[in-house]
Amino acid sequence: MRIIIDAMGGDHAPQEIVAGVLAAMEKFEDTSFLLTGDEDKIRALLGGQKYDSARMEIVPTTQVIEMDDSPVKALKEKKDSSMVVALNLLAEKKGEMLISAGCTGALVAGSTLIVKRLPGIKRPALAPVLPTQTGEVLLIDGGANADCKPQYLQQFGVMGSIYMQKVFGLAAPRVALVNNGAEEEKGSELTKKAYQLLKRAPIHFVGNAEGRELLSGDFDVLVCDGFTGNIVLKFLEGCAKTILGMLKVYVKESGSAKFGYLFMKGAFSRLKQKMDYKEYGGALLLGLNGGVMKAHGSSDRQAIFHAIAAARKFIAGDVVGAIGQEISKLAVEDDGTEA
Amino acid sequence: MRIIIDAMGGDHAPQEIVAGVLAAMEKFEDTSFLLTGDEDKIRALLGGQKYDSARMEIVPTTQVIEMDDSPVKALKEKKDSSMVVALNLLAEKKGEMLISAGCTGALVAGSTLIVKRLPGIKRPALAPVLPTQTGEVLLIDGGANADCKPQYLQQFGVMGSIYMQKVFGLAAPRVALVNNGAEEEKGSELTKKAYQLLKRAPIHFVGNAEGRELLSGDFDVLVCDGFTGNIVLKFLEGCAKTILGMLKVYVKESGSAKFGYLFMKGAFSRLKQKMDYKEYGGALLLGLNGGVMKAHGSSDRQAIFHAIAAARKFIAGDVVGAIGQEISKLAVEDDGTEA
Repeated sequence: MRIIIDAMGGDHAPQEIVAGVLAAMEKFEDTSFLLTGDEDKIRALLGGQKYDSARMEIVPTTQVIEMDDSPVKALKEKKDSSMVVALNLLAEKKGEMLISAGCTGALVAGSTLIVKRLPGIKRPALAPVLPTQTGEVLLIDGGANADCKPQYLQQFGVMGSIYMQKVFGLAAPRVALVNNGAEEEKGSELTKKAYQLLKRAPIHFVGNAEGRELLSGDFDVLVCDGFTGNIVLKFLEGCAKTILGMLKVYVKESGSAKFGYLFMKGAFSRLKQKMDYKEYGGALLLGLNGGVMKAHGSSDRQAIFHAIAAARKFIAGDVVGAIGQEISKLAVEDDGTEA
Repeated sequence: MRIIIDAMGGDHAPQEIVAGVLAAMEKFEDTSFLLTGDEDKIRALLGGQKYDSARMEIVPTTQVIEMDDSPVKALKEKKDSSMVVALNLLAEKKGEMLISAGCTGALVAGSTLIVKRLPGIKRPALAPVLPTQTGEVLLIDGGANADCKPQYLQQFGVMGSIYMQKVFGLAAPRVALVNNGAEEEKGSELTKKAYQLLKRAPIHFVGNAEGRELLSGDFDVLVCDGFTGNIVLKFLEGCAKTILGMLKVYVKESGSAKFGYLFMKGAFSRLKQKMDYKEYGGALLLGLNGGVMKAHGSSDRQAIFHAIAAARKFIAGDVVGAIGQEISKLAVEDDGTEA
């Protein structure tokens, strides 16, 4: 399989991106890479490294979309950016998947414009994986669409369920709707209607998930609009930081706790690693006519390696093909021409 | 001052409610209480206790609104419930404030129906206080209105600002809009419009707050729709539980960490207390023609005591009067008849 990499996207590009690719090349011998970016810089990073050059191609680009660029403007004006060129390569099927740690807004807008949606898909959605007490849960939409209609949420549920089947190997992923109450009749105008549509979708819909249950491990897919998803995703980061920060202060204020901390360091760093979503290989953009993965902006070589590992499963499971098939069935059913 | 207490609301009613009132009576000698509920049960709890009976009146009621009652139905059918009677007493100005640990939905709906909104107020909002790294922050709306219009959010900002001035003594509370991006142009249809209205309101509006910043301590008031507020509030509970739960597992798996934990127990229990919003005395319902406070359903005597302490500040600061004044100014300004 072949994976396209935006080598210039993210806070630590291109160094960490290239290092992550090199690590993946060593581990996965069936995978080749197509890197877009500043050729001189990439070549300099590759100099002296041992790798199978037959599995590494560079497509030179001259521009970079920066984190503070306006997404739509940047896509128009930076046609020779590493991200836009990478998106075009994916659209031309020069690779089966694209990974970028660049600006989320530009990647979402660019994917829709260049890679295009699968037939029947209303909106592509961002689908990051979050840690739970017992494993992982997929959040969809994690921030691509601030304003949603009920049918978008129904499609998010179907796409998320397929992803968890194909990539995580679950037979019947438990799909829940993020809502402000447990009962069926609870919710906003949006979630009340989405509940009814999710009930009718060909998924294992288990009802509403309240805020306190999101990380309980009782669900495999959490469906919500992108505004809510964005808040949840970033609030998790903030909560983890706040809670560990408070604990540190209390520890510092207590002599015996300070002593105890010395023995607990290992447990703390395991927790930090668990809460760090770099470990989970980035967020998929689902619903596109190709695989696009958004790696965290602060991705290091390890994060890029994990993203590549997840991308390989995505390709092997033909998630794009499976979503296309299920959505076409759903559209027919919703027209009322099938039971 | 005089505070009305729904003695039958909450998981530990009436025992813990009455015990909390007795503790407050001892501490606050200028405050008298009007309790609604099962007179026999309340009298039994008061038996043998030393208290100033001149400051304690009981209004006997025969019904209780249960947590799983449908709010609207319960309000109609349980006219002699402790909550409905308490709301009527507040509407008749028999007390300056009402505290209930009963069903949130019934309390919100009942308050609007019976106590009624202040003139000009579009929607009353629930305003709980959350812990931050450095202190506290008010979240408004914490769950009363799942669907909001931009103007509601502007009013929430004004009400929250007044509350933090009068009850927390802040000169110019920093009011932020919970949003999916830091920049002014980011947001959903709702938040983009609300941003512009908040900018024009007579408050210290400091812009957007992203999910990861909600507990940073950089803000005093967080404005959002009630759907988002409900998710944030409950997700905080879930995150704290998940994070401490994970840490516990890691600690158990490590011999030296287990040993270290013995010395850190104090720090852990301080954190638990800090994250426990019972400490913060319940959530206000702002925008009503009277003070209504929702204490947590699992309130114990300590939580009720804290709720009463907060209620006293609310009364002393005349938060209801101040909101009424500011909102009437705001309405005029929005009509365009003032600059």
